[in-house]
Order: sequence, then C-alpha cells, then structure tokens
Amino acid sequence: MNQLLRVQNFTISNDGVAAGENQSFESPFGFDHRDMFAWAGATASWPNRTDPGGSRGLDDYFSRDFAQNIGAEIMGRNKFGFQRGPWKDLEWQGWWGDEPPFHTPVFVMTHHPRPSFTLSDTTFHFVDADPTTALEQAREAAQGKDVRLGGGVTTIREFLDADLVDTMHVAVSPVELGSGLRLWESPDELRDRFNLEIVPSPSGMTHHLFWRK
Amino acid sequence: MNQLLRVQNFTISNDGVAAGENQSFESPFGFDHRDMFAWAGATASWPNRTDPGGSRGLDDYFSRDFAQNIGAEIMGRNKFGFQRGPWKDLEWQGWWGDEPPFHTPVFVMTHHPRPSFTLSDTTFHFVDADPTTALEQAREAAQGKDVRLGGGVTTIREFLDADLVDTMHVAVSPVELGSGLRLWESPDELRDRFNLEIVPSPSGMTHHLFWRK
Repeated sequence: MNQLLRVQNFTISNDGVAAGENQSFESPFGFDHRDMFAWAGATASWPNRTDPGGSRGLDDYFSRDFAQNIGAEIMGRNKFGFQRGPWKDLEWQGWWGDEPPFHTPVFVMTHHPRPSFTLSDTTFHFVDADPTTALEQAREAAQGKDVRLGGGVTTIREFLDADLVDTMHVAVSPVELGSGLRLWESPDELRDRFNLEIVPSPSGMTHHLFWRK
Repeated sequence: MNQLLRVQNFTISNDGVAAGENQSFESPFGFDHRDMFAWAGATASWPNRTDPGGSRGLDDYFSRDFAQNIGAEIMGRNKFGFQRGPWKDLEWQGWWGDEPPFHTPVFVMTHHPRPSFTLSDTTFHFVDADPTTALEQAREAAQGKDVRLGGGVTTIREFLDADLVDTMHVAVSPVELGSGLRLWESPDELRDRFNLEIVPSPSGMTHHLFWRK
C-alpha cells in the first residue's frame, strides 16, 4: 500500500480560520484557541491526557487515529514556534516541553535550517525544501508508514496546491472568528479533487473527511 | 490504562437481528448477509481487501479501528463454526482459511474443549469457562492491549449481562430482517449503563457508539 500523506484533527472555525495573524509566545494560535480545541481534550484518547476518563464516542475515533500508522510528521515553521526569519534563539525547541506528542521524526519546513535535535522519542529536522522534496524525506524516515501533515494552515495550503495530500480530516468548530489565516472560504473548493463526507458530531463539531478521487 | 473489552464493527439489521436461526456451512450467518455487511467491504481499510481503492470516509474509521491496540479476541463457538455439541470433525478450523483476519490469540467459548491450533499468526484456543474467566485468560494473552469481543450475538449478550463490556460499536443497517437472533429490541436498553452516541453515515449505516458511564 502507498504511504499516504494525511492531515489529522486539523481544527478550524466555522468561517474557515485556523490561526490568528498575531502569533506570539503567549498566544501560539494568535487567538484564544481553548474553546475551539476543547473537543479533542474531552476525548479519552487525547494524546496529552493525564487523567483517566474522557468520552469514547465519535470524536474519540478521530483522537485515536492521530498517531495510527504514522511514521513521520511534516510541519510549518510557524507551528514549531513564533520566531520569524533567521533564528535568534536556538534554545527554542518547540511548544511541547520535554515530551512532544509526536513520537516520530518531525520535519519542520523553514528557509533557515538549524541542527536536528531530539526530545524523548521525537527528533526535529529542519528542511529548506519544496513540498515534494520534504515529503520524500519524510516518507523515507517513516519507514513504510504514513506521513502526517501537521499544519499550520499555510503549510497545508502549500501541500494542497502541490496536490500532495491524500486524506484530510478537518474538525470545524461552531465558533466564528471573523479574521485570521483561513484554510478555505468553503470546503466545496476541494470537491473537484476530493471525495468529501461531512459528519456532525454530538459535541457540536462537524468533521470533514476528504480523500482523493 | 486499563485493558478494555471492546465490541468492534458488530453489524445488525434495523430491527436488531444479528444472525438467522439456521446457520449452516453454506450460510454462516443463517441468512444472506452480503447486503448488511457491504458497508465494511466498501472501505479502504477492510481487513479482507485484496484490491486497492475503497472509501476513506466515516465508515473507514470504524474499519481501521478493528485491530488497533487489540491483543486478543473472544468469540462464541457459533462464530467459529456451524457444528453444535461434541466435535464430530476436528478438521474444521473456522471459516477463514489459512490466513484468518485476527492476527492475535483467539479464545473460542465452548462446552466442548479441543486442542489449540495455529493458522498463520492466529492461534485458536478453546475455553469451557464463564465470561469472567475467559476474559482473564484473554487479557493475559493480550499482553497489555485491549481484547475484542467478536460475537456472535449470544456471546455479546452474555458478556453484557456479566457487565464486562467497556466499549461497543454496533453498525445498524437499514435492512429489516424480521426474525432471527436479536442483539436488542432497542439500543435504549443499554442507556442505564452506557453513554450512547448515534451517528448516521453517508453509506446508510447508523453507527452506535457505547461506552461505560
């Protein structure tokens, strides 16, 4: 079977916004994202869960698919951190502390490469490459498993434009944000290339499931 | 985390029927089950799929969860075969040929034990025990992973009666069968002990997701 490139659990507002325009150390998403992401935190299989409990309904199927058969992740630099341009501070090792939730090699897309480093069982590599080349590197590192495209929104749009995405799960929140970085004006934009199932969840989220035609 | 006992992808008719009353070699389910099970066969992750393709929408999440973190299966004797009473024919090794789709130890509940045997990476054990004892054996064999309760319907009802089931996914088909072995008169029977989410799929199936309160 092919190694798929999969977007998993990417969460946006009802008006298509995935991130605000003013990311900072204090605000990784550029807005107060807690309501929008509450659906994942409520599930039993949420990777960062530390206490028992959590729902095992529909949303939990999406939470627990996050890492299934994933061998590497590709992310944009703005998912990795809030600095822009040349690295002023190599001390920055991402938002996730000593135990990042990836547990695979992670390829960070950047025009400013820096040395790889390892935290627990996640190794971060920095690649100055076009999407096709970055995907080749990630596929090799994934050793036959699929590659997750972790975002942010600019990175997902680049890979969609290059027609490299095989499946995509987008969780649409009932929240309206108004302004910010948009994944789409409407999911219908992707129907020419993708099958789409739209699945409402009892949590209030609406799961959008895309796969290549 | 606990080792869960999970029912996965158990398919019934709209009127609660899981099997006909006249199982035979020619009719493993006691009725023409092909329409009812078509939803699983249409998915990309169906374990018996031999060609590429298949949908990657909602139903596929259920197909691919079938084996995730499963370390053993428990099944009733009538899922294993159509013979009743003492074994007349030890040649019978199940319906699944040389490559059974389980890939773990399988514990067959029967009052007529017989020697264990292995086909590919599936080993069948035969246990004359109550549900609690059988589950203990399966949990030990699962080595920390969850145990799947594979059916048939009589076995699932026994484990529900013993309050041993942790999560249950039942796929309800729009087909009406009228008579046969029923899982329930209504899923509401289980609401006292379980949370329930009812999720319609674009395929026409209605997925019922139960987890313990």
